[in-house]
Amino acid sequence: MKIISLDQVDKMQVQMKGASGAWKQLPLGSMDGAPLYSLRVFTIEPGGNTPYHSHPYEHMNYVIEGQGVLVDPEGEEHPMKTGDFALVSPDEKHQYRNTSPDSLFRIICGVPKEFE
Amino acid sequence: MKIISLDQVDKMQVQMKGASGAWKQLPLGSMDGAPLYSLRVFTIEPGGNTPYHSHPYEHMNYVIEGQGVLVDPEGEEHPMKTGDFALVSPDEKHQYRNTSPDSLFRIICGVPKEFE
Repeated sequence: MKIISLDQVDKMQVQMKGASGAWKQLPLGSMDGAPLYSLRVFTIEPGGNTPYHSHPYEHMNYVIEGQGVLVDPEGEEHPMKTGDFALVSPDEKHQYRNTSPDSLFRIICGVPKEFE
Repeated sequence: MKIISLDQVDKMQVQMKGASGAWKQLPLGSMDGAPLYSLRVFTIEPGGNTPYHSHPYEHMNYVIEGQGVLVDPEGEEHPMKTGDFALVSPDEKHQYRNTSPDSLFRIICGVPKEFE
């Protein structure tokens, strides 16, 4: 059993090409003995975004705070706000963007433990 | 890609023996094509609780709202509040209790898709 507050988890800036103003935390993952899945948190600053990319594994997302958009493979923007869930399937191109002028956009992003 | 607000997801009362004032939602799961993992949400009323039990798979939890306790295998109560994460490992006895007199306690509870 592990209990941890998000405030206690180290935050690292996302260095991946195409990312801007995005920070990552890893509250639960394989280092804790998680058998299958890791839960990360991305904090995206106003005007910031994650890369517009795809990969051979899914995302299971939940919006903790703020509002933004999830960009789909055709480039269409889908609004998301606190309390929304999203499944991004393996190999689906996607991007998260913070569309607020002054508030953080913060999401849980689950991935198979092999990828984080 | 699937996007859904928690408000749109059906809520069912937990009928399992030992549960009291607990409601379940399933915003993302195998019915959506989730490859590995399902995300449920439990809403526990003031004074309510999930069963004190164990099972051969883990929970990956995040507190969306409110405050309560996570009971460990020895019966010790660990306070949890909005913004806290918990990993309950396979076969670890556990229970969630709402300790607030008047507010909901709401948690995300991830499990391998075979179990939900």
